[in-house]
Amino acid sequence: MLVPSLIVAIAAIVLLLLILTSKRSTAKPEAYYDLSEAERYLHKWGYVDTRFEFDDPRSVKVTGNRYPISGFRMPHLVPFVEEMLGFSIRPEDMVEGNQTHDIPKPNIEDNFFQAVETQFKPEQFSINERDRLVHSHGQLSVGEIYRILYGASLERVVDLVFFPESEEDVKEIIKLANKHNVCLIPYGGGTNVSGALAIPTEEERMVVSVDMQRMNRILWIDKENFQACIEAGIRGKQLEKLLSGEGYTSGHDPDSIEFSTLGGWIATNASGMKKNKYGNIEDIVIEATLVTPTGNIETKCITPRNSTGIRPQVFLFGSEGNLGIITKAIIKIHLEPEARKFGSLVFPNFEHGVRFLKDLRQNGTLPASVRLVNNNEFRFGQALKPSPT
Amino acid sequence: MLVPSLIVAIAAIVLLLLILTSKRSTAKPEAYYDLSEAERYLHKWGYVDTRFEFDDPRSVKVTGNRYPISGFRMPHLVPFVEEMLGFSIRPEDMVEGNQTHDIPKPNIEDNFFQAVETQFKPEQFSINERDRLVHSHGQLSVGEIYRILYGASLERVVDLVFFPESEEDVKEIIKLANKHNVCLIPYGGGTNVSGALAIPTEEERMVVSVDMQRMNRILWIDKENFQACIEAGIRGKQLEKLLSGEGYTSGHDPDSIEFSTLGGWIATNASGMKKNKYGNIEDIVIEATLVTPTGNIETKCITPRNSTGIRPQVFLFGSEGNLGIITKAIIKIHLEPEARKFGSLVFPNFEHGVRFLKDLRQNGTLPASVRLVNNNEFRFGQALKPSPT
Repeated sequence: MLVPSLIVAIAAIVLLLLILTSKRSTAKPEAYYDLSEAERYLHKWGYVDTRFEFDDPRSVKVTGNRYPISGFRMPHLVPFVEEMLGFSIRPEDMVEGNQTHDIPKPNIEDNFFQAVETQFKPEQFSINERDRLVHSHGQLSVGEIYRILYGASLERVVDLVFFPESEEDVKEIIKLANKHNVCLIPYGGGTNVSGALAIPTEEERMVVSVDMQRMNRILWIDKENFQACIEAGIRGKQLEKLLSGEGYTSGHDPDSIEFSTLGGWIATNASGMKKNKYGNIEDIVIEATLVTPTGNIETKCITPRNSTGIRPQVFLFGSEGNLGIITKAIIKIHLEPEARKFGSLVFPNFEHGVRFLKDLRQNGTLPASVRLVNNNEFRFGQALKPSPT
Repeated sequence: MLVPSLIVAIAAIVLLLLILTSKRSTAKPEAYYDLSEAERYLHKWGYVDTRFEFDDPRSVKVTGNRYPISGFRMPHLVPFVEEMLGFSIRPEDMVEGNQTHDIPKPNIEDNFFQAVETQFKPEQFSINERDRLVHSHGQLSVGEIYRILYGASLERVVDLVFFPESEEDVKEIIKLANKHNVCLIPYGGGTNVSGALAIPTEEERMVVSVDMQRMNRILWIDKENFQACIEAGIRGKQLEKLLSGEGYTSGHDPDSIEFSTLGGWIATNASGMKKNKYGNIEDIVIEATLVTPTGNIETKCITPRNSTGIRPQVFLFGSEGNLGIITKAIIKIHLEPEARKFGSLVFPNFEHGVRFLKDLRQNGTLPASVRLVNNNEFRFGQALKPSPT
């Protein structure tokens, strides 16, 4: 048996992340994801430098050196997956993915397209098939990714991709869409897992994906009040890199941080792994700007809290682009932590772990992140480790 | 000089409240407000057993024994107030308050009133002048309280006061109001300080105050998941008394806790003094039921968080009765703390205090409550102390 019996005996583990006092210090903890940019997969998650490969018929490795799990033989993974899923994994059974995609012709509203051509630079819009397919799905495993990689083509994709470079561009494209009865779908990092980017097959109007990636600047940092104003298209990794250069962090740390964007976090009510310390996205965002067909909503509270009236900010969290396009937000920022400490605790069974978490919530100080994993999840983690020899 | 110079030299003080680990324990900390009920003032804040009285021309005391400041001579208060406000305070200058109130006749919609008489018990509604005036104001100092106590009468008061005893009653009264074009104003503890209970003088429809005080039950407590379902008319003091009997607390602790209600907290987006530990009202309330003219909104999330869609709960915070009447809510509960510890720190000036609070926010663990007071506020506190002799 390849998996040591010790591992099987462990029934529940709590993983802890403590964020220590954040005094200014030159020795910063390293980010646990590679900050460098590289080519991304068109449809799958992640960078093309990183993929699983067989290095012998029973062992795999992750290519490249981007992540801690990159570059070494993993002899335990194939046996573990076979045990869990109940079938054999053999290199010769690998399915080749779709080489081509059957992409429907774009449904162009001529007057809208003419106006876009007149008002914007050529590099701000595309009807290229590849661009249109990339912008027509998120990362929902079965309905979107499996289908694109191995299944039948998508029946409906966006008809045009638009790249605004300023809030003015967003206002203009919304005005044009409103005038010409065109649908807009804001697009952030493309990491959505709730199907929000799927286009209804019966939609007969022209559909335009508004890719926010060029609106990725920090507009200002207010160090006195620990706030920063940031364009909505910034990706988490970019944001943290820029803030870190000034000694700050947003504290928002979703699993998708390399690719997902500030606007996407707001529109999908995001939660981050360090929310016990920094809060969820609704705790992090103080103000936001939403451009709608009938005007801008700019939230602005002079006082931190009001007793009168519903806060307009709350309409944005989870709004999924239904009300308009989020162009920027003022967020809380924090001094970068001086250190991060990780730890884990082992429990004889899952119920003990649950009880521990409840006690911790009631009686203790919560670490920035705490997760209870069951034995299968733990074994999965162990199976991603190198050969002991 | 009556005020010791030491006090004048202190420029800023931070008051701290630490909530210690909340293990179950028989020795509970005492509530710092009297849990007993008594007659309330009709219009002013508080209980009639508690008022300032001159005990000699230059000294006052607070009557009764309800609060820590009750029952002793305060020789420093009159001089302090005179210094701060720049005029003399003499017993012979005391103004006698209004003995009578000029209350307009109720504007009764006959069909509505007939239906109310038919459908409800006689003790569930009142057109008594006193009841109507009491329900026509909150505690906004100048516009409401001063005017009622010393100024001209209110031009417009509610025409009827209704006391629902169940969610069914609320549904029925809303149905009737909708049918007969009658305005409803939900009324909790009457402690509103933002003018939300004032009636527009130009309102020509019948106006009914819906006093929620009889809907004050805890419907259930889920000790496994630390949740409780509570009717919206419960006052903070009642809630904490009932929860405390089971070993729990809501953790919500607004200044108005003796009188303000759960429904009022939600409708006015309330913040409590221990929010650093327990959160503000939007962090405490998990689900809520809103009865509207077009049906009930019952929020119900099986998962703690969703990426899709705006949470309907968020519309309730700060809604001030505009959308309907909140009848009940599911809130988080916590084990009662084993102990409370209070502390204070003195700073040479206010700026140092501000800097300390910022550092604490970034680098430390926040106490349940922390307040920075300036020297005048501190001196006011000192002036409420007994004579040193």
